[in-house]
Amino acid sequence: MRILTGLQPSGVLHIGNYFGAIKPLMDLQGKGEVFLFLADLHALTSLQDAAALRQAVRTAAIDLMACGLDVERTILWRQSDVPLHSELMWVLSTVTPMGLMERMVAYKEKTARGISSNVGLFTYPILQAADILAYDADLVPVGRDQKQHLEATRDIAVKINEAFGAGTLKLPEPAISEHVAVVPGLDGQKMSKSYGNTIDIFMEEKALRKRVMSIVTDSTPLEDPKNPDGSIIVDLYRLFATPEQVQEMKDQFRAGGMGYGHFKQRLFEAMWEYFAPMRARREEIVARPGYVDEVLAEGARRADAVARPVVNRVFSAVGLR
Amino acid sequence: MRILTGLQPSGVLHIGNYFGAIKPLMDLQGKGEVFLFLADLHALTSLQDAAALRQAVRTAAIDLMACGLDVERTILWRQSDVPLHSELMWVLSTVTPMGLMERMVAYKEKTARGISSNVGLFTYPILQAADILAYDADLVPVGRDQKQHLEATRDIAVKINEAFGAGTLKLPEPAISEHVAVVPGLDGQKMSKSYGNTIDIFMEEKALRKRVMSIVTDSTPLEDPKNPDGSIIVDLYRLFATPEQVQEMKDQFRAGGMGYGHFKQRLFEAMWEYFAPMRARREEIVARPGYVDEVLAEGARRADAVARPVVNRVFSAVGLR
Repeated sequence: MRILTGLQPSGVLHIGNYFGAIKPLMDLQGKGEVFLFLADLHALTSLQDAAALRQAVRTAAIDLMACGLDVERTILWRQSDVPLHSELMWVLSTVTPMGLMERMVAYKEKTARGISSNVGLFTYPILQAADILAYDADLVPVGRDQKQHLEATRDIAVKINEAFGAGTLKLPEPAISEHVAVVPGLDGQKMSKSYGNTIDIFMEEKALRKRVMSIVTDSTPLEDPKNPDGSIIVDLYRLFATPEQVQEMKDQFRAGGMGYGHFKQRLFEAMWEYFAPMRARREEIVARPGYVDEVLAEGARRADAVARPVVNRVFSAVGLR
Repeated sequence: MRILTGLQPSGVLHIGNYFGAIKPLMDLQGKGEVFLFLADLHALTSLQDAAALRQAVRTAAIDLMACGLDVERTILWRQSDVPLHSELMWVLSTVTPMGLMERMVAYKEKTARGISSNVGLFTYPILQAADILAYDADLVPVGRDQKQHLEATRDIAVKINEAFGAGTLKLPEPAISEHVAVVPGLDGQKMSKSYGNTIDIFMEEKALRKRVMSIVTDSTPLEDPKNPDGSIIVDLYRLFATPEQVQEMKDQFRAGGMGYGHFKQRLFEAMWEYFAPMRARREEIVARPGYVDEVLAEGARRADAVARPVVNRVFSAVGLR
């Protein structure tokens, strides 16, 4: 089974990204052949900073490998390294009705939020369709917010097959993740870069401890019992500790006699330990000069080799080269 | 000076195409380095017939060479053979405001004529911009109907330069042809495939004579004087004869005593002779198996070599591979 997904590189990885997106992806590696690309072409629709974009791609590749991406098994590449994405996109755009794109909610929401409505933003779902269809993907794991885009991908593939012959493109199945882990940030809102409430997973020890210590709590005195339900500390601790350890912390919350600082320290320790092997792998990767470039180059080569016959099939069906 | 132009392959070449588009292009070959691509990606927005598209590209290449395209001097290629067009297009689309495309008159006209409004039709001018900008073209000869698209190309290049640094893209100059030869068809309307009134330049002798003989005339008797002004025969004859020969025909029109059939025969002979060297070259080309493919492959190689550093410059400026 061929599982395909793209990741828009967004800079520094935080705990919310890790449990919401990265870990589920890593877990997929046991279930099929995973194709994972770093969507720098997509990122261009909202990021006009070459150095930042290049750095974000590099960081994402390093972080993924540190978090368990197996470069032998999984194909990891930078989207812009494989021209076939853009090439297929044009062909798809010639069968895509304007009305289909005009109905895309994500576009309407982005422009409503004041993001300037460039054509790339409008045609984004067609590039996404090309990303998927170029690889004859079986399964595309997406969040609920991407469900409409994946339906558009299928609609576009159907249009191509109707116009140029059944089987020209393979229809992918969506795998909608209904239960994405929502990780609370320092202030209890969903952890998100845009809220400034993140805990980054590869922080230095001192900075990480400081960050954890800044989790918002109420002003219950040290000696008083505390409510563990809805506590950000407990909710985060759950991600790193065994159920028994979580239960122990909850009991101690209720018993009183221990301050929030104590629990935060325990959370910090669990977190620090949890990410220790990834930190170590990350250091190894960063220490090998040229390694990331090699991995991405090899990934692009492998991705191109898979997509080329598919795109050739389409080009041949429509009458191009 | 680098002169760039694209030609949408449209099947069989007629006299209107020849004098309106092909001959002016051939004349440019003395004025600079001509880049001429066969726009099969663009053709896809309105043609969903693989065999017809492939044949049209092939025929256009043959006809151009027959009509004087010098494959040593001029770079001739099939658009879809060079992925850089599609790749640059995506980057351009991320800086193109939706409003700019929404103002394009050609798109509005096409959809008003009932052509289904696919996204390719809408983003067509961005692909056109990529076609031009990828080659650092100095000059782009276009008809008046393409003037707005060329202005959009310049607007898009300015947007890129503003966002990513002056000099990222070179602004092309338009060369608007104000005086395109309008060639009358058999019925006196502008010669056009869609009116069914064309005279194709590479017709068999018998078919061509028959076609010329079917030019519409009034019913003035043979012996009566005839009016040469506004006569389709005279207007077409002007394209193939010397001013003296045209004057002679006009005098004979006015003198009376000669029928339209006589003048049509003279027009046919002038036409047949005019295209004789091109017919001969065409036969030579068609007789060489694999020659057209070789020319297009070599053209694509040369075009790619010119466009690659330009597109690399853009990709580097925006932060892609």
